[in-house]
Amino acid sequence: MTAVVNAATRAVPYAARVGMAGAGQLARMTFQAAADLDVRVQVLAGTDDDAAVRAGASYRLGPPDDLAALRTIARSADVLTLDHEHVPIRVLEQLVADGYVVRPGPRAVRLAADKLHARRDLQGAGFPVPRFAEVHDVAGVTALAERTGWPVVVKARGGGYDGRGVHVVHDAAAAASVLADGGSWLAEEHVDLDREVAVLLARRPGGETAVYPLVETTQVDGICRELTLPAGLEPQLALAARELGVAIAEHAGVCGVAAIELFVTTSGRLVVGELAVRPHNSGHATIEACRTSQFHNHLRGILDWPLGDPGLRVPAAAMVNVLGAGDGRTASRLPRALAVPGAAVHLYGKAERPGRKLGHVTATGPDPHAALQIARSAAAELEGA
Amino acid sequence: MTAVVNAATRAVPYAARVGMAGAGQLARMTFQAAADLDVRVQVLAGTDDDAAVRAGASYRLGPPDDLAALRTIARSADVLTLDHEHVPIRVLEQLVADGYVVRPGPRAVRLAADKLHARRDLQGAGFPVPRFAEVHDVAGVTALAERTGWPVVVKARGGGYDGRGVHVVHDAAAAASVLADGGSWLAEEHVDLDREVAVLLARRPGGETAVYPLVETTQVDGICRELTLPAGLEPQLALAARELGVAIAEHAGVCGVAAIELFVTTSGRLVVGELAVRPHNSGHATIEACRTSQFHNHLRGILDWPLGDPGLRVPAAAMVNVLGAGDGRTASRLPRALAVPGAAVHLYGKAERPGRKLGHVTATGPDPHAALQIARSAAAELEGA
Repeated sequence: MTAVVNAATRAVPYAARVGMAGAGQLARMTFQAAADLDVRVQVLAGTDDDAAVRAGASYRLGPPDDLAALRTIARSADVLTLDHEHVPIRVLEQLVADGYVVRPGPRAVRLAADKLHARRDLQGAGFPVPRFAEVHDVAGVTALAERTGWPVVVKARGGGYDGRGVHVVHDAAAAASVLADGGSWLAEEHVDLDREVAVLLARRPGGETAVYPLVETTQVDGICRELTLPAGLEPQLALAARELGVAIAEHAGVCGVAAIELFVTTSGRLVVGELAVRPHNSGHATIEACRTSQFHNHLRGILDWPLGDPGLRVPAAAMVNVLGAGDGRTASRLPRALAVPGAAVHLYGKAERPGRKLGHVTATGPDPHAALQIARSAAAELEGA
Repeated sequence: MTAVVNAATRAVPYAARVGMAGAGQLARMTFQAAADLDVRVQVLAGTDDDAAVRAGASYRLGPPDDLAALRTIARSADVLTLDHEHVPIRVLEQLVADGYVVRPGPRAVRLAADKLHARRDLQGAGFPVPRFAEVHDVAGVTALAERTGWPVVVKARGGGYDGRGVHVVHDAAAAASVLADGGSWLAEEHVDLDREVAVLLARRPGGETAVYPLVETTQVDGICRELTLPAGLEPQLALAARELGVAIAEHAGVCGVAAIELFVTTSGRLVVGELAVRPHNSGHATIEACRTSQFHNHLRGILDWPLGDPGLRVPAAAMVNVLGAGDGRTASRLPRALAVPGAAVHLYGKAERPGRKLGHVTATGPDPHAALQIARSAAAELEGA
């Protein structure tokens, strides 16, 4: 196996060269979009079967903290960006100190990677976050619950995704069982949730921002299952959500795409959930639904090129994630999913594990509900449901 | 340099494997679409700087008639398909005789590759073609002109594309100068043209057909410059065009995408222009405008998977090709093109030659004209106009 492929010096120079730490489905779809702009993408991959690598991206192998590999990638790139937030902040800071262009920068990444830091920082800046506390033991969790009532949410400070490391605990005994795993934790009030929305946006270094139509998301067991856009919020609340998202992105100094997840409480308040500073699951429907996909706008943002119009081309859209059924036969069911009229199927080519995100289906249509029925139907075929 | 890259046996099998003769922009965009379905594409490329290769497609190097290379590609593919019609028919026939699945098959490809054969075959089947004659000398051209009047169109029998090998000649002297180049020629009446349209469709081996909305094209010097959809034909004529296209595709036994170019005469007749049996320039706008792009439907057709809905997601769309300005600076003007709101820019990464197709711009909107203004504006920025 060759460590670097498709990285030769070309007779025709690429329009730009992007390095990316991580080679999952976000890198894969960024790589697909990059070809539209003749932008070369080279990824840091864990294995040569990672989603972006099997799609054809140039790559180097290494873990997310491999400074030497990231330096090599950065050296032949105009900008280094991220597929995930698992590159240690000290590694990003070293790359910046080396003189490489890293977008988003370490400060923004830390707000996405370190949940305790994010809560403290955003609270300090006056943003509406849930009541929270750093906890080292059950007493800490109980102390928060005395203020907020049970249940409370116990979260790993870093490293979690798709609901991993997030536990809704209903009593001290449940808290004890979570904390027994070791690690760094915070506890948060369990917000009285009406719905969840995501503000997806792209930002250039100078601050120019393109904000996507508000997305409404449905999580099951902490995993995003489906989304619709535009979100069905009343206009004033939707506007407030948008403004909150933009203010947080500005505060964080993000560059490229960011997604700010917001809780809408039953009393109509907006509370900040999590922040992602890269293309995000909540933006997958932008490929078919918007004038510029999140993947194109991520590239445009980090390359300091004019951002594309984030507006809808269509009245509405919906997306449903395809989760692993555990029978290893997802791809074999593809023709059945393709038989669903109007479904745009995306498979990532990932090894199957029960509950793992293996792909997604998007549909567009006259209203979000009609689109959702189509996307659900095709996703169910893939899941063998 | 490695002859084959990204072709390792994967822990997770691909949903399907496609081989493709040719590695130009059509292969490149097919490769981008293939990643959505986790379909591996391996191309036969002339150089490792070909459009599909620099975008990351797995490849082997060889000329279009390299039977050994095509056999190697076919051996590790479920189906072999084409980016162009320059693979000799005898080579395709040998691959079929070897037992490989070749789609479209040699019969359909010959109708696209050999213009004289196509005229004879389609005329024999009762389709409306221009009056034509095989010509070996100026006397042959003059004989046709005596029936049709000058000018006449003198065409190379094979090998031409983008207007190469097609000459409108106004007298015997001009015909003599064309024929002096040698080769095999036919002469055709110069159709009294009102407009040109293309019927784009996809077909499965069993005959299931998905027909795209009729596309109206504008050619300048034989090169497609821009297109709009849906075409502005009166409904009955549009329906007749669609039926003619479908009938020709059925007659030809195409599999995957085909484009049938039709002349609409000033007297409102439909006359068959050329046939392409692969994704086609007239279908580029389907990426943004239709529920299923021509590239996805080409893959679905040749893999015998259910075809996707070819209908428009949007009211209308337009596409403008980006031609080489000859100053080698097209890619450097990309940010200026990206600043045009609503323009979806596609660059192929091809070496620049004056007049060569280097990319295209698509826009969608409420009507074709509005979309065309946007696409023209971004294309003009890229061309430095």
